[in-house]
Amino acid sequence: MSSYAFDTYRLLTPPEAAEWARTRLSLFSPGAALEATEIGDGNLNYIFRIVDPATKASVVLKQSGDTARISDEFKVSPDRNRIEHQILVRYNELVPGLVPRVYAFDPVLNLTAMEDLSDHVILRQGWLAGGSFPRAADDLAEFAARTLVATSDGVIDPKVKKALVRDFINPDLCEITEDLVFTEPFDDLRSRNDILPALKPFVEKELYGDQRLRLEVAKLKAGFLSGPQALIHGDYHTGSVFVRPDSTKVIDPEFAFFGPAGFDLGALAANAAFAFLSARAGGRANEAGDFLVRLIDRFVQRWDQLWATSVTDPSFRVPGYALWHRNQVLADASGSAGLELCRRTVGIAHVKDLTSIADLQRRLRAERASLRLGKALIFDRGRVRTGDDYFRLLRRAAGREGLD
Amino acid sequence: MSSYAFDTYRLLTPPEAAEWARTRLSLFSPGAALEATEIGDGNLNYIFRIVDPATKASVVLKQSGDTARISDEFKVSPDRNRIEHQILVRYNELVPGLVPRVYAFDPVLNLTAMEDLSDHVILRQGWLAGGSFPRAADDLAEFAARTLVATSDGVIDPKVKKALVRDFINPDLCEITEDLVFTEPFDDLRSRNDILPALKPFVEKELYGDQRLRLEVAKLKAGFLSGPQALIHGDYHTGSVFVRPDSTKVIDPEFAFFGPAGFDLGALAANAAFAFLSARAGGRANEAGDFLVRLIDRFVQRWDQLWATSVTDPSFRVPGYALWHRNQVLADASGSAGLELCRRTVGIAHVKDLTSIADLQRRLRAERASLRLGKALIFDRGRVRTGDDYFRLLRRAAGREGLD
Repeated sequence: MSSYAFDTYRLLTPPEAAEWARTRLSLFSPGAALEATEIGDGNLNYIFRIVDPATKASVVLKQSGDTARISDEFKVSPDRNRIEHQILVRYNELVPGLVPRVYAFDPVLNLTAMEDLSDHVILRQGWLAGGSFPRAADDLAEFAARTLVATSDGVIDPKVKKALVRDFINPDLCEITEDLVFTEPFDDLRSRNDILPALKPFVEKELYGDQRLRLEVAKLKAGFLSGPQALIHGDYHTGSVFVRPDSTKVIDPEFAFFGPAGFDLGALAANAAFAFLSARAGGRANEAGDFLVRLIDRFVQRWDQLWATSVTDPSFRVPGYALWHRNQVLADASGSAGLELCRRTVGIAHVKDLTSIADLQRRLRAERASLRLGKALIFDRGRVRTGDDYFRLLRRAAGREGLD
Repeated sequence: MSSYAFDTYRLLTPPEAAEWARTRLSLFSPGAALEATEIGDGNLNYIFRIVDPATKASVVLKQSGDTARISDEFKVSPDRNRIEHQILVRYNELVPGLVPRVYAFDPVLNLTAMEDLSDHVILRQGWLAGGSFPRAADDLAEFAARTLVATSDGVIDPKVKKALVRDFINPDLCEITEDLVFTEPFDDLRSRNDILPALKPFVEKELYGDQRLRLEVAKLKAGFLSGPQALIHGDYHTGSVFVRPDSTKVIDPEFAFFGPAGFDLGALAANAAFAFLSARAGGRANEAGDFLVRLIDRFVQRWDQLWATSVTDPSFRVPGYALWHRNQVLADASGSAGLELCRRTVGIAHVKDLTSIADLQRRLRAERASLRLGKALIFDRGRVRTGDDYFRLLRRAAGREGLD
């Protein structure tokens, strides 16, 4: 017997979330006494975990509000929940097993019900805790290569693509990326950056004061604003990945839209570099460096294989095109990695890899190394194509700060 | 007293068109005895001219069917009429005086009522008849620079742009361009090309057989499929321009969508080259060469001026970006000019400039010169930036065929 009506939008309380799950999902019996907890710790949304203690059956409900959880300043349309549901359905077709299964979508409540992954950990946290996830690099390379190639020009039918471009136009979430990734780290006009005081002089000289860098960033921004090459995840970092040693699940695709095909790979590569620098700053070893090399090389290998077997448009089968296009994608990946390294170090949204470095001097060195690496990846992006290219630049930046 | 109902879609007869105009437009008095003629000679649509003999008031109605007029093979959504109406309204704001005024739009009949331009001639025909249109180059450079800059990243608000991108997604008309401009001229897989028998060996060697050319064309095609830089006209040639010596009006923007900002300028430049080659082949002089030089140089001048005063996003004000971006646009313009020269010479849709050359040998030479120029503009596109650059390549191609 339902005691709630769900016919108008509101943010749910845990008991309401349990009631929604009991009445809407076949997972639970009509009389089940469900337990519900709000477990969200992200920047934008509310996450309810619903468990039936009798059967151990469980589910996660993700609900969007109309402002970001992190700050009322970010107005973000709850339509992102529709986008997330729609792309999760598509990912379940393209890369089954690498994303949570989806059970239901409620367009009134802006709520998606999906597989409970509580037996996984977030990759960023897993690495910080010293964990090892031997499948992650291959799985995440596979995820990127497969989703990107499948939605690229020459593979996807042009009319199907245009319809998808329309469905995935994502103004609010793109605005966040345009501002936080492509603009503010290089020009503190809005004074929202959040920088260690001791890092400020470095940032003022090396980011705000470097006109050559800002020119390259402007070119990358133009590509982001006008480069719908493939349906990208849009927020593909180590906080958007659930792992177990034997399982990898990509979550949180609410930033998805048609954008530069290299963007996702670059963001993830940058976050592996954060994990590497964090471990070095803490005097620990971890697998993030190996992950980075393997991620890039495996991506290139799988991209080339998938491209060769997937291209249907004869225009794009001309000799030389596959290599030219893939290298453009890799250049964008390197540029995007550089942007992510800069923005997570000086912008409004930091990463725990850096902020958790207890020793201030060591944190400062790791942050300077991030920025040095970021700049190198942006400037050299036309030549950064292999795992070794990334790792060489990463070690050089770490070395200059005494973190090698 | 209306004898027709206009509540369901159908192609109108001339008397029905007159009745629609009399009852829907304030231009005509309720009792007016209007005269209606179908005057369309384009590839896609039906055009009615409605005149009140008593007052001389007149109007043009443009109605879209659901197949192209040129051939049932091209299924084209009548939604293009909505797109044409919507962009004409926008053009009337951006470049008033350079497009027909718009009086009404009927979404049921897919019909737009607009200014009657019967006192103008189509620029292509005007030149073939030896006319001179001294305003045309400046007006058409102004039209292109103003409409393109106003809808470019850095000038237009990103969210406004995304909404417009969505409104102007134009699958059917883009498919025509993708097939006829970017694909078929370089690869006769669908056997729709229409080539003078004597030209065939040249086409087989120089277009179908040139893998280097086809690689460059594939790169341009990728840019067209994934380069929403600005709201482009999409069919900007001398058949889409009405002129008098003292007036220029751009018509037929039904191919409009967000695409590469250089596309329009290139298409128009190519059509000026056709007029030049046509005159040379006929032993006549005309102003198309001067037009071409003036069009390009004036466009660059106006683009630079408008860009400098219009850019609002600080990211794009960094030193070096304006020049880098403009030169990218000019490279795309050169590439697009090259594509247009090839496709109008060998593809399904020819231009009267070439087909009206009576002497077969001279026509053949003009067509070979078109293809030579087209290839040069594609290969050299990174260096073609001034009116003189275009004219030098045009004279060289003409010279190699004895048409200088």
